[in-house]
Amino acid sequence: MNNFEKKLKSIKPISTEYKTQIQNHLNSLTKPIGSLGKLENFAMKFALIKNTPHPELKKKRIILFAADHGVTKEGVSAYPKEVTKQMVYNILNGGAAINVFAGHIDADLNVVDIGIDGMVEHSNLFNRKIKNGTSNATEKPAMTLHEAVKAIETGIEFAERAKSDKIDIIATGEMGIGNTTAASALFAALLPCNVKDITGKGTGIDEKKLKKKAEVIKKMLNKNNEKLTNPVNTLAAVGGLEIAGIVGLIIGAAANRIPVVIDGFISSAAALTAYKINPIIEQYTFHSHLSAEKGHKLFYKALNTEPALDLKMRLGEGTGAALTIGLIEASIKIYNEMATFESAGVSNND
Amino acid sequence: MNNFEKKLKSIKPISTEYKTQIQNHLNSLTKPIGSLGKLENFAMKFALIKNTPHPELKKKRIILFAADHGVTKEGVSAYPKEVTKQMVYNILNGGAAINVFAGHIDADLNVVDIGIDGMVEHSNLFNRKIKNGTSNATEKPAMTLHEAVKAIETGIEFAERAKSDKIDIIATGEMGIGNTTAASALFAALLPCNVKDITGKGTGIDEKKLKKKAEVIKKMLNKNNEKLTNPVNTLAAVGGLEIAGIVGLIIGAAANRIPVVIDGFISSAAALTAYKINPIIEQYTFHSHLSAEKGHKLFYKALNTEPALDLKMRLGEGTGAALTIGLIEASIKIYNEMATFESAGVSNND
Repeated sequence: MNNFEKKLKSIKPISTEYKTQIQNHLNSLTKPIGSLGKLENFAMKFALIKNTPHPELKKKRIILFAADHGVTKEGVSAYPKEVTKQMVYNILNGGAAINVFAGHIDADLNVVDIGIDGMVEHSNLFNRKIKNGTSNATEKPAMTLHEAVKAIETGIEFAERAKSDKIDIIATGEMGIGNTTAASALFAALLPCNVKDITGKGTGIDEKKLKKKAEVIKKMLNKNNEKLTNPVNTLAAVGGLEIAGIVGLIIGAAANRIPVVIDGFISSAAALTAYKINPIIEQYTFHSHLSAEKGHKLFYKALNTEPALDLKMRLGEGTGAALTIGLIEASIKIYNEMATFESAGVSNND
Repeated sequence: MNNFEKKLKSIKPISTEYKTQIQNHLNSLTKPIGSLGKLENFAMKFALIKNTPHPELKKKRIILFAADHGVTKEGVSAYPKEVTKQMVYNILNGGAAINVFAGHIDADLNVVDIGIDGMVEHSNLFNRKIKNGTSNATEKPAMTLHEAVKAIETGIEFAERAKSDKIDIIATGEMGIGNTTAASALFAALLPCNVKDITGKGTGIDEKKLKKKAEVIKKMLNKNNEKLTNPVNTLAAVGGLEIAGIVGLIIGAAANRIPVVIDGFISSAAALTAYKINPIIEQYTFHSHLSAEKGHKLFYKALNTEPALDLKMRLGEGTGAALTIGLIEASIKIYNEMATFESAGVSNND
């Protein structure tokens, strides 16, 4: 049994041992019951995952996987493939949006090369390259099953690293030119939904390229039709190395009872893959935001849930997840710092 | 000319002198153009209000006005009137939700007694009591015009205090049992919309009390029908002292070019009153969140805008505005801290 299978087996449903105690505490705080809306849900979920009526949220980490996509050869992106590498250097040097948000929420940031096409060297980089980008999935599977499992296990490694570093919450992040194409293909195969509805403009292509992109995705699905037999095979066939890394990260987080905040469109494709592998995993995740990427709402619709934020963002990197950690942290402060009706001498309405 | 009239006269439309420069800078940052969605709009608006291509957001202040409502005699609230005073003590002692959020976003907090029914003494309290709560507006106007103007001028005082303390952004806040009733009456008179659609459960009344509340609001409007001739007279007739304080705060912020973040349902009624007095004022405000209070969406619909957040909150105090300041601050950090395509050596898509 490999580490992937081992971790999967170790995932248990969250305990509801302290649910009543947590709810009673929330209700004792000096505010009308439920009046902090989603924030009260966040505090409850976080405490249940941690399995304690005294939750703490101190250490936060954004874990970003970067990889390239062979399918970029088909001309599906607004930016050239080289931008993956350039942006990874930018992130490593602290110049990207995710660096700003990491600072804003006081999180550290792990940057993992899980499959960038070409050499990246930097003291802050975790080099876990599996191969120089995926294969062009219109021609053959993006990854072999072996490669996909290796990428998943890399994700698990970073969840376990977070565990041993006593990280209280994880945000998923990614960088990879072409990855909305891979994510859309994965959604189309797993939801299911039709390709046209799930295909959006990514970083900003025009209508003509958008049509092309949908055709390319159909080609990816047709070419790999026989491989789309289960979530992991589907991930290998049409997904991406960074997406597989996030799948592993989410599985590893659930196995280690670490709350994990799912970023936008790409990360949601990884989350969906993880949920299809084991639906219990969703008990350990927070959904951060509705991306401006057209098809993202189909993901939430399928799960019958809604995310924390709708800021019309479409950047990825973990930016939506980072902002959401700010809200979850606020909810834990509410839980831990507010006075109760009794302690403050405020009349309750019962 | 009183200070209210003076400040009103001094409000100018925001300058668009630096608009192109600000937009060019946003577009030069290492992200697809517009990919940070609403956050880019926040940065633009903030910089335009400050009239600079180099905006800074350091000092934040939440300004909370507290007052009582004579209409609570009609049985419109889930909590007894005494809770206003008790909650103000709780806020002054640091135990309320707004204290937690103030700490979370690193803001200071001004608490102003603008009309609590009864004596409140505390070293952190600003005592600006105009009277011991409004009159019961089902019987006579809630305030005289003189009292309303005095409350507005109190709000202006706190905007000017913020100006001299070099505050970069203000959040509006309030506490007052019965104030969703006053706010609903104000909305019904100013929007216009029908009373049933704008009347919600406030801090948590049942269906029977909700019906009663709508009847009480109709009575307030009927009794004061002749007074509903302009926004200030309407505010005096059916509004509240804390609502009038917020109207003044917003006017004073606009006159002093301080960005002001409007909290939820009550603050929105104040904002609407201010916009009806002078529509230019909206150029200086940010709308924070959609309250779970039923009628709030009618406010945004009338303005043809949408708020930053939808967290199903219905607490007031300035809680939604405080969380939104966290997002606006993130947007200013993006503006100031991100690398540009040129500085980072990242290929652009043009």
